[in-house]
Amino acid sequence: MKKILILNGPNINLTGEREPGQYGSESLEAINGELSSLGETLGLVCEFYQSNSEGALIDKLQQIRGTHAGVVLNAGAYTHYSIALRDAIASVRLPVIEVHMSNVAAREEFRHRSVIGPVCAGSIAGFGKNSYKLALYALKEMV
Amino acid sequence: MKKILILNGPNINLTGEREPGQYGSESLEAINGELSSLGETLGLVCEFYQSNSEGALIDKLQQIRGTHAGVVLNAGAYTHYSIALRDAIASVRLPVIEVHMSNVAAREEFRHRSVIGPVCAGSIAGFGKNSYKLALYALKEMV
Amino acid sequence: MKKILILNGPNINLTGEREPGQYGSESLEAINGELSSLGETLGLVCEFYQSNSEGALIDKLQQIRGTHAGVVLNAGAYTHYSIALRDAIASVRLPVIEVHMSNVAAREEFRHRSVIGPVCAGSIAGFGKNSYKLALYALKEMV
Amino acid sequence: MKKILILNGPNINLTGEREPGQYGSESLEAINGELSSLGETLGLVCEFYQSNSEGALIDKLQQIRGTHAGVVLNAGAYTHYSIALRDAIASVRLPVIEVHMSNVAAREEFRHRSVIGPVCAGSIAGFGKNSYKLALYALKEMV
Amino acid sequence: MKKILILNGPNINLTGEREPGQYGSESLEAINGELSSLGETLGLVCEFYQSNSEGALIDKLQQIRGTHAGVVLNAGAYTHYSIALRDAIASVRLPVIEVHMSNVAAREEFRHRSVIGPVCAGSIAGFGKNSYKLALYALKEMV
Amino acid sequence: MKKILILNGPNINLTGEREPGQYGSESLEAINGELSSLGETLGLVCEFYQSNSEGALIDKLQQIRGTHAGVVLNAGAYTHYSIALRDAIASVRLPVIEVHMSNVAAREEFRHRSVIGPVCAGSIAGFGKNSYKLALYALKEMV
Amino acid sequence: MKKILILNGPNINLTGEREPGQYGSESLEAINGELSSLGETLGLVCEFYQSNSEGALIDKLQQIRGTHAGVVLNAGAYTHYSIALRDAIASVRLPVIEVHMSNVAAREEFRHRSVIGPVCAGSIAGFGKNSYKLALYALKEMV
Amino acid sequence: MKKILILNGPNINLTGEREPGQYGSESLEAINGELSSLGETLGLVCEFYQSNSEGALIDKLQQIRGTHAGVVLNAGAYTHYSIALRDAIASVRLPVIEVHMSNVAAREEFRHRSVIGPVCAGSIAGFGKNSYKLALYALKEMV
Amino acid sequence: MKKILILNGPNINLTGEREPGQYGSESLEAINGELSSLGETLGLVCEFYQSNSEGALIDKLQQIRGTHAGVVLNAGAYTHYSIALRDAIASVRLPVIEVHMSNVAAREEFRHRSVIGPVCAGSIAGFGKNSYKLALYALKEMV
Amino acid sequence: MKKILILNGPNINLTGEREPGQYGSESLEAINGELSSLGETLGLVCEFYQSNSEGALIDKLQQIRGTHAGVVLNAGAYTHYSIALRDAIASVRLPVIEVHMSNVAAREEFRHRSVIGPVCAGSIAGFGKNSYKLALYALKEMV
Amino acid sequence: MKKILILNGPNINLTGEREPGQYGSESLEAINGELSSLGETLGLVCEFYQSNSEGALIDKLQQIRGTHAGVVLNAGAYTHYSIALRDAIASVRLPVIEVHMSNVAAREEFRHRSVIGPVCAGSIAGFGKNSYKLALYALKEMV
Amino acid sequence: MKKILILNGPNINLTGEREPGQYGSESLEAINGELSSLGETLGLVCEFYQSNSEGALIDKLQQIRGTHAGVVLNAGAYTHYSIALRDAIASVRLPVIEVHMSNVAAREEFRHRSVIGPVCAGSIAGFGKNSYKLALYALKEMV
Repeated sequence: MKKILILNGPNINLTGEREPGQYGSESLEAINGELSSLGETLGLVCEFYQSNSEGALIDKLQQIRGTHAGVVLNAGAYTHYSIALRDAIASVRLPVIEVHMSNVAAREEFRHRSVIGPVCAGSIAGFGKNSYKLALYALKEMV
Repeated sequence: MKKILILNGPNINLTGEREPGQYGSESLEAINGELSSLGETLGLVCEFYQSNSEGALIDKLQQIRGTHAGVVLNAGAYTHYSIALRDAIASVRLPVIEVHMSNVAAREEFRHRSVIGPVCAGSIAGFGKNSYKLALYALKEMV
Repeated sequence: MKKILILNGPNINLTGEREPGQYGSESLEAINGELSSLGETLGLVCEFYQSNSEGALIDKLQQIRGTHAGVVLNAGAYTHYSIALRDAIASVRLPVIEVHMSNVAAREEFRHRSVIGPVCAGSIAGFGKNSYKLALYALKEMV
Repeated sequence: MKKILILNGPNINLTGEREPGQYGSESLEAINGELSSLGETLGLVCEFYQSNSEGALIDKLQQIRGTHAGVVLNAGAYTHYSIALRDAIASVRLPVIEVHMSNVAAREEFRHRSVIGPVCAGSIAGFGKNSYKLALYALKEMV
Repeated sequence: MKKILILNGPNINLTGEREPGQYGSESLEAINGELSSLGETLGLVCEFYQSNSEGALIDKLQQIRGTHAGVVLNAGAYTHYSIALRDAIASVRLPVIEVHMSNVAAREEFRHRSVIGPVCAGSIAGFGKNSYKLALYALKEMV
Repeated sequence: MKKILILNGPNINLTGEREPGQYGSESLEAINGELSSLGETLGLVCEFYQSNSEGALIDKLQQIRGTHAGVVLNAGAYTHYSIALRDAIASVRLPVIEVHMSNVAAREEFRHRSVIGPVCAGSIAGFGKNSYKLALYALKEMV
Repeated sequence: MKKILILNGPNINLTGEREPGQYGSESLEAINGELSSLGETLGLVCEFYQSNSEGALIDKLQQIRGTHAGVVLNAGAYTHYSIALRDAIASVRLPVIEVHMSNVAAREEFRHRSVIGPVCAGSIAGFGKNSYKLALYALKEMV
Repeated sequence: MKKILILNGPNINLTGEREPGQYGSESLEAINGELSSLGETLGLVCEFYQSNSEGALIDKLQQIRGTHAGVVLNAGAYTHYSIALRDAIASVRLPVIEVHMSNVAAREEFRHRSVIGPVCAGSIAGFGKNSYKLALYALKEMV
Repeated sequence: MKKILILNGPNINLTGEREPGQYGSESLEAINGELSSLGETLGLVCEFYQSNSEGALIDKLQQIRGTHAGVVLNAGAYTHYSIALRDAIASVRLPVIEVHMSNVAAREEFRHRSVIGPVCAGSIAGFGKNSYKLALYALKEMV
Repeated sequence: MKKILILNGPNINLTGEREPGQYGSESLEAINGELSSLGETLGLVCEFYQSNSEGALIDKLQQIRGTHAGVVLNAGAYTHYSIALRDAIASVRLPVIEVHMSNVAAREEFRHRSVIGPVCAGSIAGFGKNSYKLALYALKEMV
Repeated sequence: MKKILILNGPNINLTGEREPGQYGSESLEAINGELSSLGETLGLVCEFYQSNSEGALIDKLQQIRGTHAGVVLNAGAYTHYSIALRDAIASVRLPVIEVHMSNVAAREEFRHRSVIGPVCAGSIAGFGKNSYKLALYALKEMV
Repeated sequence: MKKILILNGPNINLTGEREPGQYGSESLEAINGELSSLGETLGLVCEFYQSNSEGALIDKLQQIRGTHAGVVLNAGAYTHYSIALRDAIASVRLPVIEVHMSNVAAREEFRHRSVIGPVCAGSIAGFGKNSYKLALYALKEMV
């Protein structure tokens, strides 16, 4: 069994309460539960971490070097401007998959630009909680 | 009496010491004192919070859902790039009033753009500590 | 008692009839009445002028030099391109407060730019008719 | 069993021969075979179509209205400028999933813009042939 | 002996492990050791602080007012977008020298823009750990 | 019989004298005569107004609310920057058809942008005086 | 009787089914029938051609040189980027009238730019099927 | 003796009172007096007109066709955006000389662009009231 | 003798009839005849293909892999936006020489950008039919 | 008598031969002769220097410090990009008047930008050789 | 026999030593020798001149008017910004052919723009020393 | 002892006289004297060269290949646009250190861009004459 990190950025802890039309009505905890189960069937142990702080997300990414095999990252709004997060991703040298629950391409112009995209392994967007599940399937092939 | 939050972002704790020509020479504590008094006369209990950390400001905004009736927000420099803060404001579904002590329109070009403006209820800029007081008057009408 | 000018630009005479969701359903006359009353309580005599013509607004601004103590200006669409109005504001050397009833930051991109902002004392936007009232409070402190 | 279309755009017929580092060394036929099998296990009958012609891709999309339940679309280079294809996607009113084998975000600047993204249901990029497989999993949940 | 601060931003704690071609293979601790020694010979007591958090860097800068004589700052990725950090630098009213180990001008386009440059005293880039040492020499002349 | 307004902006009064290659050699009066006749046959009473003043055009548009059924508007150069005129059009809530005698798309770059287009019902350009006539046909179907 | 071509581009064959709010609910065939009748009353024989393929539209334009007297062209999405179609229009040396059923100026930003406009005789947009009819009236005057 | 027009735009009537460092301390009337005298020695009868209204400036330009031999135009802020004024200048078919008292190239970025420049005969800027005088010398050679 | 392809894009079949000032008055057939002869003297068998369709040009490029030694490509208007054609050129791994009969640098701004240039071996423009002949000379040295 | 420098940049030595429609048919020598005479009547001794070399123009400007009272500068094409020349002008601390024989505002877009304008005293353009003469009149008032 | 000039700009004298992958390993002298020979067979006498100085290149171009029949110009880096060189080319009224040894379209973005292209007769790039030879063939047809 | 070149560009010869606030009041000769002494203590023989001419700076850089071990380059204004100088730096294949006496990041926008930065080894700016001294220290480590 390989350990992976499901890393969630700012405001994702409000999933279920915040704009349900956009993000669905299940809580992050419920989604994490489903991901744990799916992970197990795929041979992946999922660890979960969420923070609203850019620095804390970077700290976490740095800490898993050596212990984890990959990352599923929903960087929320930091996707669009956090070059510091981008540098952290480039530094960990693990496959990091960018996910978004909503289809960011269909939202405001400023959400079309991802500064972390060029250093991630791939990206999945628009499938609600299934975006995470697809990322687990993808990660399984990579680690 | 309704509870509201006066939320101040990066470097605003230095008010009074930093560029007095731009921000006046009263300390943030002194200003907060005046706001408390004015709030009372308007039927508003003011809670105060300042942080230099983007994540901490978001955390705070998330915590007041359900307990507070509105927010007066001086986001400082985060005004101009923190999409994460913008998402937090959009998530809390409370009237948030954007304030600035200086007239940002008369300063550097990069201070003319507000990424939080579109999700705030309104904005007030250029009146020193009175920007906060006017926001209290405005908030009173809204909550 | 000090004399001040409430100066309104193009299409503001239609307030109450035009996009009530955006601007409220009270007529400009009704709003002006409320402002007169509030002005009196603040020691300010309000004079009112509205025009759809850029030149007439400039003429008016030039005429009040020496007789008035300040201006509350809702420049309407001229906010976004009238450099001539900007120059007039800079010439009168009185505190001019920019107001908007709607939250312009939440509307079309071209309404986010104010060419008059840099020469005004401050700005207030998004509070309907209360934007004017807040400007009276602010002006009182300045004149 | 539901019918879906796997639609491939320009130069994708060369997969396996063209830049294997970027696109892998399996032929499109081989990949299609794997997709057929996976489709079957998911209850989806996969139909395949590839063309280098923008018009032919649009024709195909128009023809499947009423008979198919969804589309997996690798639009190749048309992703970046074919507004005509975008209009066709919007017209078919079926879930269309944008896929790319390579991580387009890590390639030339002009490949970062997707004109079809805003009218697709979601997007998956960077996982080689697995991008298609993940799209099948995603489509299964939608149709 | 004067006290100065060597302040390092996000991901700089990984120096030595991360992209050694770009940043050299010595650890930050080793480099700090060398700087301490050099500082002593120059009559400067070096204090060291590193954080991945924008807010923590600002907090630190605010705390050294009155006790330190200057700052050597490698802001890492925050160099390119942290207006909040820029405001903090402007507020401390001490000479702050911007340093980078790599030659940022030779890297990605987005690394060519420094938002902190205009409020620093000067900048040094491209000399690996020697960038810090040159900054010590420069600071010595200024404090 | 329905009343409509043919509204002409700056310099259109010079038609016939000014750049005949671009605008034809008939005077505005002659054209208006033909439009009156055509209007009659279509059951439309044409009123004519021309002004070089942005404010006067806005005044006129505001005055016809309630009395007229539609507008044919050649805004001349104001087409390209008069947001005030745009707001007036949006306020009258009547079908307004944008016309140009010349094919503006074939002229200087700055004439390609119409700020009034988004709030008009449709646009007709390039047919000389026939642009107005086609607009009458179109308006007849709408009012 | 003069022969003219009514040339329709991508996705226009779906008219009546696709976004009826935008394009009306009549089919292209029904509209063509009305145009044939109107053409007859104007002394114009209408030939109809629709294709989703840029190349086929260009082929058609080239073929009618010598036999037809003018063209009514709804280039659909190709309006916005097909320089090849523009060159074909310039080559045929016949009056070509650009038409759009919807008011493109009121839609997405990318639909505001017409690359074919500068080489067409004029343009008509926003009147549904009547855009074509107005073009017939206009063409009659030109051929 | 030839008649020429000295045409002054918005806020130029305040010359002498407004920013004397920029525009000198002589009134427009005093300057006009000097220009009249100089005109006489050059064989030119100077007529003077100033307005803050874009439309009035255009009206004036149209009225002098046939009676005047040239124009000295200080368009003030309209220089930078009045395409309507530009069209009027192009229509009068007289030599029009653009003048500015201040050196606009040394002021704000938005004052560097002249939309009227391309249709004027030449331009003179930066010499205070002498800008007008130089224009008289220049006009004398042209009319 | 080596086989090469002379590939011509949209509207080039009209050469001789279309804008003779720009493209000369000889037909494409006549030019092709001259190229065949020159090819023979250089040891090159020229095959000719022209299409107005982007997809057909890509198809052709794909088909010649393995049988031809190089390509002379006049992509016409597709030069400026066909990323699909660019990808096809990159895929064939043969020397492809970009040619233009006219000097595209001296024409409209949008013709200055070549999206295929970066994947071609070289480019020749401005010499009429001789552009093709020079390309044959160049290709001879490469194949 | 005061000494001034008439400094001419690249290609101005060809005046009279080069594009006479744009620059007149008199040679630079002939023009210089007229300027010498006019200078004398104004109490100015004109020295003349022309070079095609940016460096030589800068050398010349540096050499006249202390001996000359002002400069008339036609920098030709260097006007639009020579920041080095701009710095030299700023360094000499003499009034430098920018002149152009043609009306640069009516020519190519890239000639609308003057990088030297902000450090010159004023500018005169569009009057052929008279541009220089007007500059002499202007300089006389300044030195 | 006609005289032509082979004019080479900055750093081209280093050909053979500088980036041989990009420019080949033959010296400029060796290349010039080959060009002399080829010129002779074509009836062209080649004169050679190289300079690193923009002014010297312009001087040379001016000097050959009347004596030479054409120019082959490799302007090196000046290609991208020397408007002065562009003006010189326009002034000589001889056919000037722009050549580059490397395929500039495949290099840095800033090398894609040629400011001299619009005034040259044609351009050839990407064929190493053969770029010059092709230019001789082309020039032969023109002079 | 290794030989290095201290290369200074346009207007740097005026150091001491020109804007002393910006550049200090010591002459270039005095600074060079100090650098010679420092060089000696570091084992570096400093050669000095200054020119206002872009071409002369390039000539000098080319001449030191083989004889010198490194370069300290203050390119002055050429820093911002001389691609020719950039190419020369890239060609010499020696460590070149970019220096500026002033903090260019705190000056005009156009001084923030360095076209030579990407091909230099590193850069130092803002320390007056000490910028050169720090460069000597840095160069010592590299040669």
